[in-house]
Amino acid sequence: MSTVDSGDRPLDRGVSSLNAAGGRTLLITGGTVVGVTGAVEADVLVDGETIAEIVQPGRIPVADRVLDATGKYVIPGGIDVHTHMQLPFGGTFASDTFSTGTRAAAFGGTTTIIDFAVQRTGEVVQDGLAAWHAKAAGECFVDYGFHMILGGVDEDALKAMDQLVADEGVTSFKLFMAYPGVFYSDDGQILRAMQRARDNGAVIMMHAENGIAIDVLVQQALARGETDPVYHGITRPPELEAEATHRAIVLAGVARDCPLYFVHLSASGALEQVAAARDAGRNVFAETCPQYLYLTLEDQLGAPGFEGAKWVASPPLRSGHESHRADLWKGLRSNDLAVVSTDHCPFCMKEQKELGLGDFSKIPNGIGTVEHRVDLVYQGVVDGKLSVQRWVETIATTPARMFGLYPRKGVIAPGSDADIVLYDPNGRTTIGVASHHMNLDHSAWEGYEIAGRVDTVVSRGEVIVDGTGLHATKGRGRYLRRGLSSYLL
Amino acid sequence: MSTVDSGDRPLDRGVSSLNAAGGRTLLITGGTVVGVTGAVEADVLVDGETIAEIVQPGRIPVADRVLDATGKYVIPGGIDVHTHMQLPFGGTFASDTFSTGTRAAAFGGTTTIIDFAVQRTGEVVQDGLAAWHAKAAGECFVDYGFHMILGGVDEDALKAMDQLVADEGVTSFKLFMAYPGVFYSDDGQILRAMQRARDNGAVIMMHAENGIAIDVLVQQALARGETDPVYHGITRPPELEAEATHRAIVLAGVARDCPLYFVHLSASGALEQVAAARDAGRNVFAETCPQYLYLTLEDQLGAPGFEGAKWVASPPLRSGHESHRADLWKGLRSNDLAVVSTDHCPFCMKEQKELGLGDFSKIPNGIGTVEHRVDLVYQGVVDGKLSVQRWVETIATTPARMFGLYPRKGVIAPGSDADIVLYDPNGRTTIGVASHHMNLDHSAWEGYEIAGRVDTVVSRGEVIVDGTGLHATKGRGRYLRRGLSSYLL
Amino acid sequence: MSTVDSGDRPLDRGVSSLNAAGGRTLLITGGTVVGVTGAVEADVLVDGETIAEIVQPGRIPVADRVLDATGKYVIPGGIDVHTHMQLPFGGTFASDTFSTGTRAAAFGGTTTIIDFAVQRTGEVVQDGLAAWHAKAAGECFVDYGFHMILGGVDEDALKAMDQLVADEGVTSFKLFMAYPGVFYSDDGQILRAMQRARDNGAVIMMHAENGIAIDVLVQQALARGETDPVYHGITRPPELEAEATHRAIVLAGVARDCPLYFVHLSASGALEQVAAARDAGRNVFAETCPQYLYLTLEDQLGAPGFEGAKWVASPPLRSGHESHRADLWKGLRSNDLAVVSTDHCPFCMKEQKELGLGDFSKIPNGIGTVEHRVDLVYQGVVDGKLSVQRWVETIATTPARMFGLYPRKGVIAPGSDADIVLYDPNGRTTIGVASHHMNLDHSAWEGYEIAGRVDTVVSRGEVIVDGTGLHATKGRGRYLRRGLSSYLL
Amino acid sequence: MSTVDSGDRPLDRGVSSLNAAGGRTLLITGGTVVGVTGAVEADVLVDGETIAEIVQPGRIPVADRVLDATGKYVIPGGIDVHTHMQLPFGGTFASDTFSTGTRAAAFGGTTTIIDFAVQRTGEVVQDGLAAWHAKAAGECFVDYGFHMILGGVDEDALKAMDQLVADEGVTSFKLFMAYPGVFYSDDGQILRAMQRARDNGAVIMMHAENGIAIDVLVQQALARGETDPVYHGITRPPELEAEATHRAIVLAGVARDCPLYFVHLSASGALEQVAAARDAGRNVFAETCPQYLYLTLEDQLGAPGFEGAKWVASPPLRSGHESHRADLWKGLRSNDLAVVSTDHCPFCMKEQKELGLGDFSKIPNGIGTVEHRVDLVYQGVVDGKLSVQRWVETIATTPARMFGLYPRKGVIAPGSDADIVLYDPNGRTTIGVASHHMNLDHSAWEGYEIAGRVDTVVSRGEVIVDGTGLHATKGRGRYLRRGLSSYLL
Repeated sequence: MSTVDSGDRPLDRGVSSLNAAGGRTLLITGGTVVGVTGAVEADVLVDGETIAEIVQPGRIPVADRVLDATGKYVIPGGIDVHTHMQLPFGGTFASDTFSTGTRAAAFGGTTTIIDFAVQRTGEVVQDGLAAWHAKAAGECFVDYGFHMILGGVDEDALKAMDQLVADEGVTSFKLFMAYPGVFYSDDGQILRAMQRARDNGAVIMMHAENGIAIDVLVQQALARGETDPVYHGITRPPELEAEATHRAIVLAGVARDCPLYFVHLSASGALEQVAAARDAGRNVFAETCPQYLYLTLEDQLGAPGFEGAKWVASPPLRSGHESHRADLWKGLRSNDLAVVSTDHCPFCMKEQKELGLGDFSKIPNGIGTVEHRVDLVYQGVVDGKLSVQRWVETIATTPARMFGLYPRKGVIAPGSDADIVLYDPNGRTTIGVASHHMNLDHSAWEGYEIAGRVDTVVSRGEVIVDGTGLHATKGRGRYLRRGLSSYLL
Repeated sequence: MSTVDSGDRPLDRGVSSLNAAGGRTLLITGGTVVGVTGAVEADVLVDGETIAEIVQPGRIPVADRVLDATGKYVIPGGIDVHTHMQLPFGGTFASDTFSTGTRAAAFGGTTTIIDFAVQRTGEVVQDGLAAWHAKAAGECFVDYGFHMILGGVDEDALKAMDQLVADEGVTSFKLFMAYPGVFYSDDGQILRAMQRARDNGAVIMMHAENGIAIDVLVQQALARGETDPVYHGITRPPELEAEATHRAIVLAGVARDCPLYFVHLSASGALEQVAAARDAGRNVFAETCPQYLYLTLEDQLGAPGFEGAKWVASPPLRSGHESHRADLWKGLRSNDLAVVSTDHCPFCMKEQKELGLGDFSKIPNGIGTVEHRVDLVYQGVVDGKLSVQRWVETIATTPARMFGLYPRKGVIAPGSDADIVLYDPNGRTTIGVASHHMNLDHSAWEGYEIAGRVDTVVSRGEVIVDGTGLHATKGRGRYLRRGLSSYLL
Repeated sequence: MSTVDSGDRPLDRGVSSLNAAGGRTLLITGGTVVGVTGAVEADVLVDGETIAEIVQPGRIPVADRVLDATGKYVIPGGIDVHTHMQLPFGGTFASDTFSTGTRAAAFGGTTTIIDFAVQRTGEVVQDGLAAWHAKAAGECFVDYGFHMILGGVDEDALKAMDQLVADEGVTSFKLFMAYPGVFYSDDGQILRAMQRARDNGAVIMMHAENGIAIDVLVQQALARGETDPVYHGITRPPELEAEATHRAIVLAGVARDCPLYFVHLSASGALEQVAAARDAGRNVFAETCPQYLYLTLEDQLGAPGFEGAKWVASPPLRSGHESHRADLWKGLRSNDLAVVSTDHCPFCMKEQKELGLGDFSKIPNGIGTVEHRVDLVYQGVVDGKLSVQRWVETIATTPARMFGLYPRKGVIAPGSDADIVLYDPNGRTTIGVASHHMNLDHSAWEGYEIAGRVDTVVSRGEVIVDGTGLHATKGRGRYLRRGLSSYLL
Repeated sequence: MSTVDSGDRPLDRGVSSLNAAGGRTLLITGGTVVGVTGAVEADVLVDGETIAEIVQPGRIPVADRVLDATGKYVIPGGIDVHTHMQLPFGGTFASDTFSTGTRAAAFGGTTTIIDFAVQRTGEVVQDGLAAWHAKAAGECFVDYGFHMILGGVDEDALKAMDQLVADEGVTSFKLFMAYPGVFYSDDGQILRAMQRARDNGAVIMMHAENGIAIDVLVQQALARGETDPVYHGITRPPELEAEATHRAIVLAGVARDCPLYFVHLSASGALEQVAAARDAGRNVFAETCPQYLYLTLEDQLGAPGFEGAKWVASPPLRSGHESHRADLWKGLRSNDLAVVSTDHCPFCMKEQKELGLGDFSKIPNGIGTVEHRVDLVYQGVVDGKLSVQRWVETIATTPARMFGLYPRKGVIAPGSDADIVLYDPNGRTTIGVASHHMNLDHSAWEGYEIAGRVDTVVSRGEVIVDGTGLHATKGRGRYLRRGLSSYLL
């Protein structure tokens, strides 16, 4: 990156008048701009916080600052629509705060997160949202929004949905078919929330596992003395994810095709249900997460001793003897899976995961990946499993469209926020606890090598990460009031 | 449209040096630029034949010419990948020449066509291509490319495939499972052509109807005295399109997932086969045509007397008592149908369609729609069946990507050909023989009203159609050497 | 029927020594014996309570009594595996007692019923069984067995399952996914009961409707003032039966392919789920009932005023605008539906159905058909929808095999109970309240005409019904201790 | 077997008068009679050629001859509906004549075969039938019928179909989608034959492999020097069987649901197509053969050197790495596979199979199994893959029903031909060339051990095989004029 003295500029292209706040222009030149339909050689001019121009290479001779993107992909900043900073779970809290978590996100090329505010049974929805605002305010390094978890759907909560959509920029609500007694909604609650979403335009996000049946299997396993981490996976069979997926699709249909988005889809059978609904023209969507694309029940969750606890998350890693991973990559290609998020929910081994020593059901659920998503999906491009445009679409563009951030985020277009990543396909990234920035005493991805590298990260016109490190202040990240989804069929 | 005197320009943005051929800059301002993921307010600067800049509104104060696009959609020029200008068929020729046909296309907002050169059994493939070049050269008002119909797959033809891909810019080959004795290939020929395409990177296009079985039904119907046009439809049941679709998909699989593109998919059952293949991650694609989205066997093909002959095409219009039309719109939404083309193949009633008086099997097959495709699909947007971005994607962007024209065509991006349509959503278009520009003595769409209008058409920087008419010379259209498809999964 | 004086017998075929209890032989001669693979002309010799011989016509010259079956079908007595005599429901009791109900069954050619004993939450399973034994003992005109409804699956209930299978001849257990707060089991209870059944060999019977979601729809309809009987149907959409069917199949799979039998399957979508499970080789079975084969939501449930209350049952009658009825007949042909039962649960209009005046949710659920099942399914034979052998298979043979009564019941074979119906295909039956024998002040089938007639009914060798009426004493029916199902794949 | 002196008989049960031809009665006593719905303990009295009585054990004290069936299954004689005695193929003839083949069948418990008479293109159908009658007449040890292969469907052949159905007792016609230039029919010929069958009530039997595509693969393999037997399998991939299966089902649908029976179904994909058609209520049926249930492409066809030639048949043995065999057993359980036949078509290694040394495409196609089918399917019972009743149903009862022989054959019922096998579940059979009776210099089943044994074989009342060997004269087998199928849905 070099800064050009403005005195050299023979043509100012009217920039100064548009950038009245004293902001400077930033030119990204020589790169390959990747969009969802392909890549073009183009230069990008940022004016203040906004993308102002996209032009043929060389047409803009000067700018306040210039980033040389030669040999690099110029992509919209990553959007991770599924994070859980500081989530209280199982008697502890996810180890990343909004500060540490968004800092790690920035390093990894993710310039927007959507986290989950939580309402539990008996709580007031708006109180939950306020609590999460309090956690995030002044802490974030990148922009952030909130989905709302509804843990207790009742009349008040239904009314709160309308209010959040109308006033708070929260347009997506997550329900759980798992975790009875914690987040679980029964089918009647789900149906009512879906009907309300159908009316107010929100998207219902679903954790689809049949938690009632799973809890029976868990208790039976523990009673048999099957307490190791691997039994977390064995007691949550993929059939029970597929079942819940089917059920939620039916309920959304009864709610007159309420838009439905499955979080962290992990298994072939669930994917088949989504594919069938999409073939039928339904507004049904799904995300998967890197862990389901790469890791397995046998290799990670079944690691010797208590090691597997690192990978205890729900849904669990699936068997590598079945076709889950290959099917998920296929789903990403065919758009039956629209998004890759992380479900970032880190817990340290020490004092956190260890709560489940001798009882897998007490291991806090979650894996930390917010820093590595852009890289891990890019590795799929390298491996020939995904095109470069699908990489961009699944990590940035569709997330923005799905959750009402488009075209402000997720695309390199005039008027969009200047959230831009320069990605170096000739770089190399080695993942591990020694180098990562997440507040986590281990890495679920220790030793993974990526044939690519996040080179430079621009957030609203500001270069927040480059080769020399982070150049951003805590609290610069803004809360994003989201609109309704623009992704519906 | 207004022309701004260049003397007014305080800043020339370096345009003149880039536009050395004396071309002038064209600024499209105030419009809504539509891409496949959504729309943004942006101005577009054309420099010579090329799109040079896409910028926030108002950033470019002057240009040689300015088009005011206020209140209009600014979209990439339409690409019709399925036309048959002057096709010899049933003892006559399709009534549009490359001249009349591309002129009509231009009026309808289509700035690129891909027509089909033909090889018949015993003919040399390259001779067929040369013959079509001869028909088109110097005649076209818009740019054009060729697919190659292979009517006689043998060793020479297979070698010719390689040569056309390597040298001629012809990267897609059409085979017929119908029309025995004319274009028909048997499953062995199909398999061999698919294997070759798999190796040289071409796409196989398929007319999927089981013509061998259909011919039995046709002969039986004629023997029973069932000679009216409606029997053309009755003897080509949708099951036999679905069957051929399934078979072609299997054969493409045996050819190690050869890319396969179904032309003019018309029926629910065929769509189900395509959807299943796509769910399985296969490189299987399909187009449909406006006639299958709107017209029916009963209402049009079954019109009294010989009137139905206007709509004799293969596959035939399908029954309105079944769900075909709704399913095809659904397929367009879900991308199981990727493209809308026309299968433009007009025959006049007089002396042409009339060849089949008393024997439906002698009616030349074809409907003329090249002028109306952009409008007819837009009507789907108006009717709430399609988003505006899917409109653009199915009529321009995916056609370009599918057939190796992207990013030169099909997108508004820096460096792309300046093929741009200003579409007025507040305009109104009435279709009919009195106003259309196709060389056709009737209209298959007589009386159709579209709640929108092609306002201005720009082709390679030249305003060829505006409110005052056509401003283009015959022969300005260039032959497009196409690359390989960039749409494959 | 004629009685032959034993003095005429030149050959006694050793009968007397085998029939030591003074019983007499009964010869059924001249008839067409129908089995599941076809029909043969054969004579049947009954010795005491048992079928002793099946022989070529005319080989047995004499017997104590002779029934001339010329021109008639000789079939195993009907077995109705789904009745609810005196069931307490909605503050009243099903109007047929075991006495009136089994008497009506006998008139209709049904010589065995399996009724449902009931355990409710908090009750001891064995107490429920004892209560039903008390209701039935000494009351029945034909043989009877019990399934057990489990309304409260807990550790005690699971143990009771084992005991009932081992000691009580109760080898099938019914669970409800509907009726929350009454019979409803959650998915965990269902899973545990299925696991237990898998171990002890029992069959799980399932009422598959998502009652939790339905209750939301019911409350919403009532709140809108939609109180007429037809809303009973509208608030129980077929999707929610299909959903529950799918879910139960998945849970049974998790329980290592526990045998699963769906009661009263009513809708196309549910049938598709069963068919898919059967294609996958699963031990999944289903019954339907005459009401779903003939009646519709519009014509019956939607009858003017409160008339529709006659047909309020769950699942509800389905729309005649959809393909449900045709699909159910198809399912009977293909064996995706294995059994026709009645779900006989009659409530009089007066004082019973009327409890739901002004609130459909208070109408007692049930239709009375126990007397007409054999006739109504035979009408399907007349209508060309079913073969005569499938008639016998679905009303007698498969019920016996499915529920552990074979070969004692359900087949005309040496050693089987002599439960035999002579059915006259040239007879005629008009159904209506004036002639039926059920304790019911209306008929759901008023005016239905059957092109056939139950001519003579033999139960364990005793002619209990003939043209002159009933010849049986109350209490002659015996309790049947059933074995395990012999129908499993 | 013991013969009881008639002087001992106190009661002759009128047998002599019924057995006027001087024939003697045969009592099969103490056995377990197996039918399609289960097994009962019963004695069977044969009178002359016919089953006269089925009675409770011990009711018939005497008979001319008595077979003690204690501890044995008493089942209807096996019916092999797919044999090719003396078939001319690839320049040679199947090595079993009707004499040697039916003799071997008898040893194996098969008392009826249906062989295929052949018409080739240009031949008169009736001439082909006459030629096969000439081969069989006076040669057979058991009863036999004919299907007709149509190798050249034209107007004359269509008329001949009617005549064979009406006059000749030939009610099933086999077509080939494979073997172009030999037996192949194109889709038009298939459609016309199906239409004719639909009208005259016959069943169309289909060899479903896409032979046109296969021939391309075969030629390509040979051109690459891939000449070993295993390439016979590799060039006939299962997808091309599934494709042809689908296509035939569609064509039969176009022919208004012509009954369609797939011969020698070998692969999972083809089975899925049949299952889908059956779910849709179609008259679609299929058989498989023991080789597809047990043997694999790798283990047998891929045996070292030329050894694999023993198992060259079409369709080929399928890969053991895929689920074909398990799926076929599943299909037999679910009745998606209705019949097990052999496709018996033996060729000796010496001078016959050896014709294909160096060129797998010249190896005569066929495996010899007619002697072992009853045993090999019984082994499935032993292995827990099939119930004893499904064994009987798939090897005898359904074959009889499917092909118009029921109730004359395929069932133990009064009036049926006394074709009965006593099968000893405590016996043991070792298969191999040293002991088999087929005219074949090797065994495809060398070393297979069956945990059961054909004990005694009765054909039309005559004990033709017992522990001491064959007791039958050549030519005793009669031609069976078959009626229409009684198996249709």
